[in-house]
Amino acid sequence: MSQQFDFGMVGLGVMGRNFILNVADHGFSAIGLDTDLAKANALDDEGQGKPVQGTTSKEEFIAALQKPRKVMLLVPAGNPVDAVIDSLLPLLDKGDLIIDGGNSFFADTNRRETYLSAKGIHFMGIGVSGGSHGARFGPSIMPGGDAEAYELIRPILESVSAKVNGDPCVAYLGASSAGNYVKMVHNGIEYGLMQLISEAYDVLKRGLGLSNAELYEIFAQWNQQRLQSFLIEITAHIFTVDDQLSDQKLVDLILDQAKQKGTGKWTSQNAMDLGIPVPTIDMAVTLRELSALKPERLQAESIYGPAKALNEDKAAMLIAVEQALYFGFIATYAQGMAQLTDASKEYNYGLNLETVARIWRGGCIIRAGMLEDFRKAYHNNPTLPNLLLDPSMAAQLQGAEEGIRKVVAAAVLSGIPVPGLSASLAYFDAYRSGRLPLNLVQAQRDFFGSHTYERTDRDGIFHTEWVE
Amino acid sequence: MSQQFDFGMVGLGVMGRNFILNVADHGFSAIGLDTDLAKANALDDEGQGKPVQGTTSKEEFIAALQKPRKVMLLVPAGNPVDAVIDSLLPLLDKGDLIIDGGNSFFADTNRRETYLSAKGIHFMGIGVSGGSHGARFGPSIMPGGDAEAYELIRPILESVSAKVNGDPCVAYLGASSAGNYVKMVHNGIEYGLMQLISEAYDVLKRGLGLSNAELYEIFAQWNQQRLQSFLIEITAHIFTVDDQLSDQKLVDLILDQAKQKGTGKWTSQNAMDLGIPVPTIDMAVTLRELSALKPERLQAESIYGPAKALNEDKAAMLIAVEQALYFGFIATYAQGMAQLTDASKEYNYGLNLETVARIWRGGCIIRAGMLEDFRKAYHNNPTLPNLLLDPSMAAQLQGAEEGIRKVVAAAVLSGIPVPGLSASLAYFDAYRSGRLPLNLVQAQRDFFGSHTYERTDRDGIFHTEWVE
Repeated sequence: MSQQFDFGMVGLGVMGRNFILNVADHGFSAIGLDTDLAKANALDDEGQGKPVQGTTSKEEFIAALQKPRKVMLLVPAGNPVDAVIDSLLPLLDKGDLIIDGGNSFFADTNRRETYLSAKGIHFMGIGVSGGSHGARFGPSIMPGGDAEAYELIRPILESVSAKVNGDPCVAYLGASSAGNYVKMVHNGIEYGLMQLISEAYDVLKRGLGLSNAELYEIFAQWNQQRLQSFLIEITAHIFTVDDQLSDQKLVDLILDQAKQKGTGKWTSQNAMDLGIPVPTIDMAVTLRELSALKPERLQAESIYGPAKALNEDKAAMLIAVEQALYFGFIATYAQGMAQLTDASKEYNYGLNLETVARIWRGGCIIRAGMLEDFRKAYHNNPTLPNLLLDPSMAAQLQGAEEGIRKVVAAAVLSGIPVPGLSASLAYFDAYRSGRLPLNLVQAQRDFFGSHTYERTDRDGIFHTEWVE
Repeated sequence: MSQQFDFGMVGLGVMGRNFILNVADHGFSAIGLDTDLAKANALDDEGQGKPVQGTTSKEEFIAALQKPRKVMLLVPAGNPVDAVIDSLLPLLDKGDLIIDGGNSFFADTNRRETYLSAKGIHFMGIGVSGGSHGARFGPSIMPGGDAEAYELIRPILESVSAKVNGDPCVAYLGASSAGNYVKMVHNGIEYGLMQLISEAYDVLKRGLGLSNAELYEIFAQWNQQRLQSFLIEITAHIFTVDDQLSDQKLVDLILDQAKQKGTGKWTSQNAMDLGIPVPTIDMAVTLRELSALKPERLQAESIYGPAKALNEDKAAMLIAVEQALYFGFIATYAQGMAQLTDASKEYNYGLNLETVARIWRGGCIIRAGMLEDFRKAYHNNPTLPNLLLDPSMAAQLQGAEEGIRKVVAAAVLSGIPVPGLSASLAYFDAYRSGRLPLNLVQAQRDFFGSHTYERTDRDGIFHTEWVE
C-alpha cells in the first residue's frame, strides 16, 4: 500500500474525519493519522467502502502518501501544530506540502512558513469554516501562502468545498498568513452577527414577550428574505428543539454564559494594532466576557431591578427589529471587510475583497444572501475602502436606518442592553460625520500633555499654551 | 561635587526638567542627564538658585549621585528605556535603584526587573500622571516593584507628589509592574472620560446649537458640582481660548483627528486577554481610529447627510446631559477599576483599590471629586468586585439613569454618535441583567461547532445533536 494515497490528514476529531470522508466522496484517496486509536478506528468504520484508512503510525502515514505529499493538519491551534510539524519533519521530503487547517494565529503561520521553507517544505495556512457538517459536505475554504504550492492541493480543495451555482467556495487568497487572517476576521464577523441576533432575540422575548413558537416563525420568515443566512436559519431551528430532560424548549435551559476560543478577541486586538474601528466585533467579545460574570450580574439585578418591557406596537416593532438586524449585519461585515482591506496593505497579502465575498457565499458560518451584494460592490469598485461607501449598500442602509434607530432608542429607554446594535449604529453615525467632536479631545491632549494639534484651515503642527 | 546629589533624572524634556525642579523645591538636590546640550542647559537656566544641575556626561551624572543612587528615567517608552539602562549599567553599583517613570508596557517592566535584579540593581516601574504642570507642581505617582527599594525613594516621591488634604498622591501599589499597569488603566479611563466629554460637547453643540460661550458656562458650572474634575475644568477653559490666527475660538479650528500613544489601546487589548469587559474604553479607542478616517467620513456624509438637530427642550436636555456624563464617568471608572481588580489576581500585584482611588484624587489627569466616593466604596468593602455593586454608587447611578437614557435615545434618533455613552449604558444594562440572551449564542455554538453548553437547572457539560 505504499504511496497510494492522494491526501493525508493529521487529527481525526469529528472535523478531520468528516473532511477526509468529503475528500473520498470526490474521488481522492485519503489516509488519516491520530495518536488516538479509537479515532483512527472511527475513520475506518465511517469510511467503509471509501478509499480511506486510519492509522496511529506516523511512519505508515507518511509512507502511504503519494509524493509530493499533501498533509493537512486539523489539530488545536498553538503548540500542538508545532509538535505535529516537528514530529513529521524527519519523515518528509523536499517539495512536500503541509497545510494547517486550524484556527492558527496568523503570526504563527508566518513563523512556520519561514521555518519550513528553509527546509524545502511547502507550508500553507488555510481557514476552513462550516463546522463539522461543512467539513463533511462542503466547507468554505480560505487558503493563503505559497501560490505555487496551492496548485498541488487546488483540485482536492475545489472538489470538497461548498459550491454556489457551481462556483467553488475556495480560492487562493494571498501570500503568507492571508488564509488564517481572513478566517480570523470571518470569525470576528461571526461573533458580531451572533451578538446582534442575540439582541434581537432579547428585544423580542424580554421586550415584547414573544414565545419560542413565535420566535421560530419570525426567524424562519426572515430567513426567506434579505436576512437569509446560515445563522438566522439555525436560530429559527433552535427555537423548535425540545429539551430531553424536561418539557421545555432546550434554549430556555441553556446557561447564558457564552464561551470563546479566541479568534474574535484576536480580530479586535489586531484591529486595534492596525488602527481599524470594529466596534460591533469589540462589543461581541465584551458581551461574552460580561456573560461570564453571572454571579455579579445576579447581584446587580437584585440592586437595580430588571429591564422594563417595551411599550411599543408589536407589529411595528417586528418590522423595526428586522431593519435593525439587517443594518447591523451590513455594518458588521463592513467593519470586518475594511479590516481585511487595511490588513492586506499592512501585511502585503494582496487580498481581493470580491474573492473573499465570493467564497464566503457558501459553506461558512457567516454565509448569507447579502454576500452576493458585497461581492458586486467590490466587483464594481475593487478599491472600495468601505462597504458603506457603495451606492447600492447605501440605499439598503438608508432603507433600514429608521428601524435600527427605533429599536436602539426603545431598548435604551427600557433597559434592555443592545450593545451590538448601538455600536453598529454609532459606527455608521460616526463614519458619516464629516466633523466629529474629536477636535475637543485633541485640544485636551495639547492642553495637558503638549501633544500638539493640526488645524482645519492650514497645514502644520501646532501647540498652544492654553493657560497664560 | 562628587556624590552630592540626592536624585538623578535621565531625559530632560519638559516633563523631566519640571520633575527635577519640583524635587529641588522640596529640599532635595538633583542632577539631570540628557544627550541634548540645549536641554541640559535649559535645566541649568530654569533651576537657577536651586540645587540642580544639568549634564550631557553620563560619567559625571553617575559620579555625582549619592549611593545608593536613585536614577529616574523619563524617556520614550520602548527601546530608548533599554538603551539608557544598558548605557548606565557599567557605571552603577549593586544596590542602586533605577526608576522608569515613562508609560512603559507592563510586560517590559517585568522583563527589565528580572534583568536588573540578576545584576544586583533595583528596578521600579512608576506611573506619573499630571502632564508637565503636574510634574512641576505635584503629580500623582503610581510606584510598583520591589517594596524595599521603594523606601529609598519614598521621601522624595511623597514630597513632590500632589497632596489632597495633606495626604500625598503616591503610595506603594504592588509587586513587579503594578505601577505601570495601574498607570496604563489610568490612561484607559482617561480615554473613556475624554470620549464621553466629547460626546456631551457634540450633543450640546451639534444637537442643541450652543455657542462656545454657553459651553464654557455649562462646563464651568458642572465643574462646581459632582462632575468636578480636571478634565471638565480644562474643557470649560478650552472654550474660552481665542485663536491667534483668526477671530474665532481656537477649538473650532482644531482638526477633528485625535491621536493616541498606545496606552488606551493596551488597556483594551489586555482587558480582552484577561476577559474583562471595558466597553467604554474600547469605544474611546475606536473613535480615535474613526477620527483618522476624515476623507472617508466626508465622503460618507455626502452620501448619507449630516445628523439632525435635537428636537428637545434645552433646559431639560442640559439636566439630562449632566446626568449622562456623570453616569458615564462612573461606569468608566468602574470598568477600569474592575480591570485592576482582576489583573491584580492574574499578575499577583496585590493591589489595594482604596489606595489606587486615594492617590488618583489629586495630581493626575483623571482626578475628580468622585474619586473620594470610590475610595470610600473600597474602604467599606476591600473585595468589592465592581463599583456598580456599592450601595452608595448604586444610589448615585439610579439618580442619573433617566438622564443617560434620555440623551442616548435622543442622540440615536437624531443621528449624533454617542458610542461612549451608549457603551456605558449597555455595560450597566448588561451587568444588571441576571439573564442575558447569550444562551442563544451558546446554543448556536453548540449547533454548528459542537462546542457544548451548560444548563441552568443542573451541573455538567452538555451537547445536543440539533438536527436529527
